[in-house]
Amino acid sequence: MVNKFKIQGVYLVTDRPLCLYHSLSEVVRLAALGGVSLVQLREKETNSRKFLELAKYLKEILSPFSVPLLINDRLDICLAAGADGVHLGQSDLPWWEARRILGNDALIGLSLETKEDYHSLIQTHPNPPLDYLAVSPVFDTNTKTNTKPAWGLTGVTWLKEKTNLPIVAIGGVNESNAKSIIDAGADSLAVVSAICSAKDPKLATETLSKKFH
Amino acid sequence: MVNKFKIQGVYLVTDRPLCLYHSLSEVVRLAALGGVSLVQLREKETNSRKFLELAKYLKEILSPFSVPLLINDRLDICLAAGADGVHLGQSDLPWWEARRILGNDALIGLSLETKEDYHSLIQTHPNPPLDYLAVSPVFDTNTKTNTKPAWGLTGVTWLKEKTNLPIVAIGGVNESNAKSIIDAGADSLAVVSAICSAKDPKLATETLSKKFH
Repeated sequence: MVNKFKIQGVYLVTDRPLCLYHSLSEVVRLAALGGVSLVQLREKETNSRKFLELAKYLKEILSPFSVPLLINDRLDICLAAGADGVHLGQSDLPWWEARRILGNDALIGLSLETKEDYHSLIQTHPNPPLDYLAVSPVFDTNTKTNTKPAWGLTGVTWLKEKTNLPIVAIGGVNESNAKSIIDAGADSLAVVSAICSAKDPKLATETLSKKFH
Repeated sequence: MVNKFKIQGVYLVTDRPLCLYHSLSEVVRLAALGGVSLVQLREKETNSRKFLELAKYLKEILSPFSVPLLINDRLDICLAAGADGVHLGQSDLPWWEARRILGNDALIGLSLETKEDYHSLIQTHPNPPLDYLAVSPVFDTNTKTNTKPAWGLTGVTWLKEKTNLPIVAIGGVNESNAKSIIDAGADSLAVVSAICSAKDPKLATETLSKKFH
C-alpha cells in the first residue's frame, strides 16, 4: 500500500512439480541472482507446517537480495513466516480481511479474472488499498486450470487505462510474448514454468528482465 | 489459556461428507441445542473464501449458545471469522506461532499423536500456554486416516497423570465407549460421525452429554 517495493519486472510464482532441474529453493536463489523482482510462494498440497518451513527458508534466501516474498492465499503462513504479503485470488480470503489482519505495511495483490471482477472491486472501493492487480490469465496456460477466458493483450491495456495500480500479467507468459505484454501495459510479468522449468533459471530471469529495458 | 470457556463435555468436529441427514450448519445448530460444549470446523477441500463464509455462519449459529468455535489448522480463517481459536495437529502451524499471532485470549488446542509428542512439548515448554491436549486417536477410526497407533484408554490415563491441561479424546468415540473414556481421564469427548451422521444430532449430543454426569 505505502510500500517500499516497486511492483515492476519479473515476478516468479513457484510451482514445485514444475521445478525440473533444480530444487524450488535453488530456483528461487537463481532467480534472485538473475534479478527477479518478487517471488510468490504457491503451495496447494503441502501441510501447513511444511508450507511454513518452506516460506521461512525462501524468506532467508531472498532477504539479502531485498526481494519480497508473497504467500499465495495463506495469511497465516505469511504472518508466521514474516513474509512481505499475500497474493489473493477471487476464491481466497477477501483482500479487505487480509488488509485488516496484515496491516498497512503488507504487500497485497489481487487477481482479477474478469472485467466484472474489476468493476465489483471499484464499485465498493474506488481506491482500493492494494499493491497491484493481476490480470489472470493474460493468455491460456496449462499451469493453472479452471481459470476464466484469457484477458489477452487488449485486456491488459483495458485495465491499464482504468487503474493507477501496478498491473501484473500472469498466465502463459514467456520470453517470446513478454515484450508485447509489457507494451500492452503490464508493469510486471508473472511466470511459473518459464523460470521453474528452465535449465538455467538465472539466465531465464535475466532474459525476461531485459524485456523491460 | 486464561479462557472463559471450560473444556469439558461433548466436542463436535465437523465433517461435511459425513453429514448424512442434515446440512452441516443444521447439524451444528442441533448439536448446540443438545448441549455441545465446543465445535471445531474442519474443512480440508474447500477454498478459503467458502471456508471463511462457513466459519462466519457457524459462529453466528453458536454465539447465542455461548459455544466456542474453533478452526482446524487455519489461523487466518480464525482471525477473519472472529472464531474463538484453533485446533492444531502435529503437521499444522506450530502452536507457539498460533499463540503469538492469535494472542492470549484465543483458545488453542493441540493434538498429540504419540507419547513422544507429549515429551517433546514438555521438554521445550514445561507449562505450555495451551487450552487443551487432544489424545489422537484414542481408538482407531475410519474418519481420519494416516494417524499413528491408537492411544487406548491406558494412554488417556497416562496423559491425565502427566498434565493439568484438559484432555480431549478424539477418534472412534461413540455412545458405547464414551463412559469408559471419561473414566480413563478424558475431560472432553470429540466426535465426528456420532453427531454428524446421526439422524437426530440433538439427541446424539444429549446422549453423549449425559455420560459426563
